[in-house]
Amino acid sequence: MNWKAILKIQGIILIIIAVSMCLPLAFSLYYASGDALDLLLSIGITLVVGLILAISFKPDKPLRTREGFVIVSMGWISAAIFGALPFFFNGVFDGNFIDCVFETMSGFTTTGATVLTNIEILPKGLLFWRSLTHWLGGMGIILLAIIILPVLGLSSTQLFRAEVPGPTKDKISPKVKNTAMILWLIYLGLTVMETVMLMFGGMDLFTALCHTFGTLATGGFSTLNASIAGFNSLYIEMVILVFMFLAGTNFALHFFVIQGRLGEVIKNREWQFYVSMVVITIMLVSLSIFKSDLGYNFGTSLRYASFQVVSIITTTGYVTTNFELWPAFTKIVLVLLMFVGGCAGSTGGGMKQIRIMIGGKFVAKEIRKITYPNALFSLKIGKEHVKEHVMKNVIAFIILFIGLFAIINLFLTFRGYDMVTSFSASIATLSNIGPGLARVGAIENYAFFDNISKVVLTFSMLLGRLELYSVIIMVYYLFNPKKIH
Amino acid sequence: MNWKAILKIQGIILIIIAVSMCLPLAFSLYYASGDALDLLLSIGITLVVGLILAISFKPDKPLRTREGFVIVSMGWISAAIFGALPFFFNGVFDGNFIDCVFETMSGFTTTGATVLTNIEILPKGLLFWRSLTHWLGGMGIILLAIIILPVLGLSSTQLFRAEVPGPTKDKISPKVKNTAMILWLIYLGLTVMETVMLMFGGMDLFTALCHTFGTLATGGFSTLNASIAGFNSLYIEMVILVFMFLAGTNFALHFFVIQGRLGEVIKNREWQFYVSMVVITIMLVSLSIFKSDLGYNFGTSLRYASFQVVSIITTTGYVTTNFELWPAFTKIVLVLLMFVGGCAGSTGGGMKQIRIMIGGKFVAKEIRKITYPNALFSLKIGKEHVKEHVMKNVIAFIILFIGLFAIINLFLTFRGYDMVTSFSASIATLSNIGPGLARVGAIENYAFFDNISKVVLTFSMLLGRLELYSVIIMVYYLFNPKKIH
Repeated sequence: MNWKAILKIQGIILIIIAVSMCLPLAFSLYYASGDALDLLLSIGITLVVGLILAISFKPDKPLRTREGFVIVSMGWISAAIFGALPFFFNGVFDGNFIDCVFETMSGFTTTGATVLTNIEILPKGLLFWRSLTHWLGGMGIILLAIIILPVLGLSSTQLFRAEVPGPTKDKISPKVKNTAMILWLIYLGLTVMETVMLMFGGMDLFTALCHTFGTLATGGFSTLNASIAGFNSLYIEMVILVFMFLAGTNFALHFFVIQGRLGEVIKNREWQFYVSMVVITIMLVSLSIFKSDLGYNFGTSLRYASFQVVSIITTTGYVTTNFELWPAFTKIVLVLLMFVGGCAGSTGGGMKQIRIMIGGKFVAKEIRKITYPNALFSLKIGKEHVKEHVMKNVIAFIILFIGLFAIINLFLTFRGYDMVTSFSASIATLSNIGPGLARVGAIENYAFFDNISKVVLTFSMLLGRLELYSVIIMVYYLFNPKKIH
Repeated sequence: MNWKAILKIQGIILIIIAVSMCLPLAFSLYYASGDALDLLLSIGITLVVGLILAISFKPDKPLRTREGFVIVSMGWISAAIFGALPFFFNGVFDGNFIDCVFETMSGFTTTGATVLTNIEILPKGLLFWRSLTHWLGGMGIILLAIIILPVLGLSSTQLFRAEVPGPTKDKISPKVKNTAMILWLIYLGLTVMETVMLMFGGMDLFTALCHTFGTLATGGFSTLNASIAGFNSLYIEMVILVFMFLAGTNFALHFFVIQGRLGEVIKNREWQFYVSMVVITIMLVSLSIFKSDLGYNFGTSLRYASFQVVSIITTTGYVTTNFELWPAFTKIVLVLLMFVGGCAGSTGGGMKQIRIMIGGKFVAKEIRKITYPNALFSLKIGKEHVKEHVMKNVIAFIILFIGLFAIINLFLTFRGYDMVTSFSASIATLSNIGPGLARVGAIENYAFFDNISKVVLTFSMLLGRLELYSVIIMVYYLFNPKKIH
């Protein structure tokens, strides 16, 4: 294993984390919220460790593809461990470092599951850091999905190729650095737009930034215990809804919009599928809660339903009402959306729209093959043929995703948690959503889980965020380092 | 569509049903249970319709492969509709024909889900007919899986080939008629053995036959409301447990045992997997219920656990205790076993052991391919290569199975049933088990469902029993008859 390269890159990641912590430090000092020393100490430690690693290791051989997976997975773990330091030093979780790492991993993986029982008592600096981990993680995932994984030859690239039709097959720009820059600019542009629009709705800069981070990363951390319901503002809900929807869209499509290639967005099959699914489920959920005995009028039903559907399908996890009280049908619709998730190349988690499409088309093709054994059928998304190895990778992903979900679910019931809590906590972490049902429902949190379960759930968030394969390959090579040859 | 051939074969099936009904008629007359006229009327109608169809249609062209699927699916539907007549004429379900068909389909598909709220008031003739539908359905499925589907070029044959190693690749016997005869004799032999052994345990012939039918078909209909718990006999539980286990085994392996080829049974990979899964889950469930606050000693825990695990994994559905009261972990283990089911070529339902094995190996292979993109990996079960088209068929089946489960689950919650009831009723019908959890739990029944839900659940049993594809192809061609060319 090329440890020198791996550790050097971990060092670089830690330096980025340390520098990022200066922003919450600024807010801490501005508000005099009393957590400046915690942040300063964390910055110091993270920076020193980062610098030592980055300077003392000089890779002497090029990276192998498989080492790339180890780097990516370890990068997220390093970020979560060092990013947890401010919470640890502040003592907000009574010194339970597992809680600190859970919260930070939930941030970096853009999950939004919290172990805080009272978010509002957190000092401003930490509160800002917590939301900022979302934003950093969201950007990281887009870079990973559209730039790093393609270079490593992993599925997301193949997905991306399969899914963006026509001349863009060779990525947005031929030069990787340009692509990265463009994506950063789009992300930054959306951040500025949403922040300004939220401030129009009466939020201060601090609150607006925190919620923008939570939205664009499809994260879900709020600064209020009641999440978005706490603002009680239709305007704010609408702004967040729109930006959640945009964050769940492939970021390559945003680039097309900027280029004026609107036609390509509208013709994009994954986007069509995503829009159709959003519209249909909003209608189903609206009608279901309107018809139930919750006493909503139709406008309120539509308002709650559209926000919750978009929040869940994009795997954000913001809530405007306690959907735990909704009918079983509505809850099952939301649970199924949790499995589906956003588009490929977005900040959303879950299995992704394109994989569901390919999975469905694969099954249809196999059924046709049974009736016409000698005919040849090809699997197409739009006009684009899906290559055999891409199709297999996608199918394996779907089965692996469901299998891992079952194992995590089994583990949680083994630890003594009830079925609905275990079921929904498993999918809410694996798909990076945050809230689930029952004890992890809309207005609940993850604080009550025992430490071993928290570790498993932390791992579940990481697995889901890095599209399973990277993490599995990392674990495999960590236990079998000699196998890399 | 070759309607002449399809209708002629439906006629033959109805004649077989009519003849089979003479056995319950005999019991009815012997016990003077008062349902002889209901049975006689049903026999008359079924026989007349069967004869008319069988005689008046003379197929003038050979059957196409795809018409085979239509025949098989329609055969099960015809059997369920005409087999429901005795219940209808007796008025046991207050004249609700949907209930009658549900109960009969549950019998023929070897599911064992009942809409009877009090089984024990059913007259002896009907009670016997109800159990006999299991036995007929179980035999039908083995013939289908090992003889008919192979001829149609469907998956089960491929599974069978993939899974029975060595010289048996070309089926048990080169002549299909011989194979059928051998399977009948094995089935009959097991029936005689279990019946005798149950009578040793104090059952009368009637009760012993009914429970043998329920066991060997992995059905689960009992003559007692309390199912096997009603006998309160360790001996009877052990006999039924052993025969459930045998019924969940590939019947080709029974043939090997008769031939003295025990080594081939032990070396059979699916069988090894099946045995391991049974042993491991029994241990897990025993420990779980022993450690819980149910107050069982270890012997009792082992006794309940082993019976329930074997009953669920073989998709029989007999119960010796109310597992609804067991810990969440145990219930999730049982739910996962519901998805897995028995071996290919057995009377068990579910996805089947061999498919789970192939699915797992496929995922492992894809992960290896990511790390070594240029290496070639082959998918093997034991020493046997799994062919590419077989692998794809299996993978598509797994995804389709889970997808259909989700749709049925969604539909039931849409009809207003709670999540756990809907979830477990969906899998308990699709995997042909019978009891599930909550309102369809161990000591409950399916009577409370509304008629539309009962129709959907009936269809779910049929889908699962005929391995999905046949039924989907039938539905497709019934709506698009011109597509068969």
